[in-house]
Amino acid sequence: MTKVKTETLRVELGERGYDIVVGANLIDTAATWIAPVLARPRVVVITDENVAPHYLAPLTDSLEGAGIQCDAITLPAGEQTKSFSQFQALCESILEKRVERSTTLIALGGGVIGDLVGYTAASVLRGMPFIQVPTTLLSQVDSSVGGKTGINTIHGKNLVGAFYQPKLVLADTAALNTLDKRQLLAGYSEVVKYGLIDDLEFFEWLEVNAQDLIDGNMDKRRHAVLTSCAAKARVVAEDEREGGRRALLNLGHTFGHALEAETGYGDTLLHGEAVSIGTAMAFDISTRLGLCPGQDTNRVAAHFSTINLPSDLAPLPTENWTADKLLDHMSRDKKVEDGKLTFILARGIGQSFITRDINKDDVRSLLDDWLHHKSG
Amino acid sequence: MTKVKTETLRVELGERGYDIVVGANLIDTAATWIAPVLARPRVVVITDENVAPHYLAPLTDSLEGAGIQCDAITLPAGEQTKSFSQFQALCESILEKRVERSTTLIALGGGVIGDLVGYTAASVLRGMPFIQVPTTLLSQVDSSVGGKTGINTIHGKNLVGAFYQPKLVLADTAALNTLDKRQLLAGYSEVVKYGLIDDLEFFEWLEVNAQDLIDGNMDKRRHAVLTSCAAKARVVAEDEREGGRRALLNLGHTFGHALEAETGYGDTLLHGEAVSIGTAMAFDISTRLGLCPGQDTNRVAAHFSTINLPSDLAPLPTENWTADKLLDHMSRDKKVEDGKLTFILARGIGQSFITRDINKDDVRSLLDDWLHHKSG
Repeated sequence: MTKVKTETLRVELGERGYDIVVGANLIDTAATWIAPVLARPRVVVITDENVAPHYLAPLTDSLEGAGIQCDAITLPAGEQTKSFSQFQALCESILEKRVERSTTLIALGGGVIGDLVGYTAASVLRGMPFIQVPTTLLSQVDSSVGGKTGINTIHGKNLVGAFYQPKLVLADTAALNTLDKRQLLAGYSEVVKYGLIDDLEFFEWLEVNAQDLIDGNMDKRRHAVLTSCAAKARVVAEDEREGGRRALLNLGHTFGHALEAETGYGDTLLHGEAVSIGTAMAFDISTRLGLCPGQDTNRVAAHFSTINLPSDLAPLPTENWTADKLLDHMSRDKKVEDGKLTFILARGIGQSFITRDINKDDVRSLLDDWLHHKSG
Repeated sequence: MTKVKTETLRVELGERGYDIVVGANLIDTAATWIAPVLARPRVVVITDENVAPHYLAPLTDSLEGAGIQCDAITLPAGEQTKSFSQFQALCESILEKRVERSTTLIALGGGVIGDLVGYTAASVLRGMPFIQVPTTLLSQVDSSVGGKTGINTIHGKNLVGAFYQPKLVLADTAALNTLDKRQLLAGYSEVVKYGLIDDLEFFEWLEVNAQDLIDGNMDKRRHAVLTSCAAKARVVAEDEREGGRRALLNLGHTFGHALEAETGYGDTLLHGEAVSIGTAMAFDISTRLGLCPGQDTNRVAAHFSTINLPSDLAPLPTENWTADKLLDHMSRDKKVEDGKLTFILARGIGQSFITRDINKDDVRSLLDDWLHHKSG
C-alpha cells in the first residue's frame, strides 16, 4: 500500500459527525478510510463521464481489494445532471441494484455529483449512508462539507434538496491534476472566500501562495483545502440548518446566484466565477455604504485579477440585462425572509457580517453602475 | 365559532414533537389550531380533486378569516399522484408561488396527499414546515402520524422519501362522512392492527363497536382514531427512524405489500384490504409455526369478515400468481437487512413480535396454500 501524507479534520455534529481526510493520491488507497465507516461491505459508486476514466477503476480496485462489493453508475457530466429527471433515474437505478439501508452510496466527482448523490442518499429508502470523494477544488472546499444537498429547478438552483451529512469525505488533492484549469480557478474563489470571511492571515497566505497551489504544489493544496474545510466545518457545526451564522458562507453568493441565473448556469459563467464577481460586488457595496475601506475592496479585486478570476461583468453578455432582472433573481433566494434579502457585507478583509438592512435602491444603483460603467 | 368536541394527543419527539387534534367538524374552525403553529401567517394548501369540493373552501375560509394568506394547489386524486412527475410538478408549483422557509404547507387529503406533501415539504428549500389535515380513516390513524413520507417508484411503493415530522395533525372525524365506504373500511384495517399488535382490550372494544364507528358515531370514531394515533405515536416516539420496535407497525404489511405489488397498487386491491389479508396471513403462519393458538387466528379472520374486509385471496385475480413472485416482491422491502426478511408474527391477539428467523420455505409453502386452496 502506498504511503500517503494525509491530515484529518473532524466535523463535530454529534452523532452526525464525520471525518474529512485530505491528501494526495488518497483514491488509490481509499479502502483504508472507507472500509471502517461502512455498515456492511457493499457500496454503489456514482460518478460522471469525465471523472470515471480517471478515478473509477482506482477507487473500485481499492475497495474490491478490501472485500467490498462495488456497483457503479456513471452519469452524464455537467450541471444539467442536477435535475429532477436525473434524480429519478438515479433513484430507480440504485433501487434496481436491490440496495439495503446498510448499503453505502459513494459520490465520486465534483459538486454536481456530490449534491445529486447526497440528496439521493437522503431520499432512497428514506435515507442511506453516503460518502463524498470530491474530485474538484470547488467540491473539496465547499460542497462536500456541510451537508447541503440538492438539485436545480426551473425557479432556481438548489431549491429542492435536503440537509444530509456524509459519513466521510475523502479529498484527494492529486485528483485536481486532471481538472480543467478554468474549473480549478473557479473552485479557488471559494478558498479565497474563507479568508475574506474571518481569516485575514489565510488571505495573506493565499496572496503569496495561490499560484503555487494552483500549479500543483501538494503541500500547499493540502493546507488550503484543510483550512477551507476547517473554516466551513466550524460554521456548520455552529449552525447546521442555516438559521444564522452559516449565512456568512454565502459571501458573494447572493449577487453571484443572480449572475448565474441570468447566464443559465452554464459554461458562460461557472459558479466559482460568479462567486468571484459577486464577492467583488459585495465588497464594492460595502465600500459605497461607508462600511469598508476602499483599499480592501481594491485588494480583493486585485487578487482575483492576479489569479485570472473575473472581478467585474466585462466577460459577460450583459447587453439586455437590467438591475431589476438581477434583483428579481435575488429575491428568489432560499434565505429570503419576509421579503427581505440577506446580504453578506464586509467591514474589511476577514471582517464579513450578515445583514438584512440593505435598501433595495442601493442594490439597484450598484447593479446599474456595474452594468453600465464597470462592465462597459 | 362552532364549539367542537376535541381531544389532543402529544407526539413526544423533543423539538420535533407535535399535537394530534381529533374531533368532528374540525376543518370548519381549523385556524384555531393552525394559527398558533405558523412561523408566519402564510400557507399553501395542497389537496386533490376528490377532497377539494368538500373541504378546501371551509379550510381556507377559516384560515383567511384569521388573517392567514392562503394559496391552494389541487392535484389529481389517486395513487398515481405519488409519482416522481407529480413530485416535480408540485415542487415547481410551490416555488412558483415564491414561498419562503417560513411558509407552511398544508396537506388536505388522504395518505397519497399526506405522503407526497410531506416529502415535498422535506425537500423544497431543503425543508419547510407542514401540517397534516387527513380526510380518510387510513391517513388519520396511520400515514399522518409518524413522519414517514414518500413517493412510489417502479421498484416498489414508498421507496423514495424522508422521515419528516409535521407541526400539527388535525383529524376531522366528520370528514369521513364523504369518504367512499370501501375506503373507510380499508382504513379500518389499520385500526384493527393496533389492537392486534399489543392491545387486546382495544380489539375487544372494536369487536363490539366497529359497526357503529363505521356507520358514523362520532364519539366512537374519536375514540378509535385517538387510540390508534396514541398507539402509533408511542411506537414512533420510541423508534423514530425505524431501527427496531417501529417494525411492529408493519403487521400484515410484508404480505400485504406483495399483494399490492402484484395487483399494481390500484383499485383491484386497496392498501387497507391488502393489510387485512396480509394480517390474516401473518396470523396463519404464526399458527402453522406453532406460535399462535388457532382460535386467535380464526377470531381475527372472523372480525374482518364481519366488517366486510377481505381475509383471504378469493377476491383477487390470482390465476397466474406464484409463491416465488410474491416472495420476490417481499425481498424488495426497505426493511430487508443482509437479505433477511423481517416478519411481524403473533403469539396471540395483542401479542405481536418482530422476527427475522423465518425460513423462506415456510413462507413459500404458506403462499402456495393460500394461492391454491384457501383462495380456490
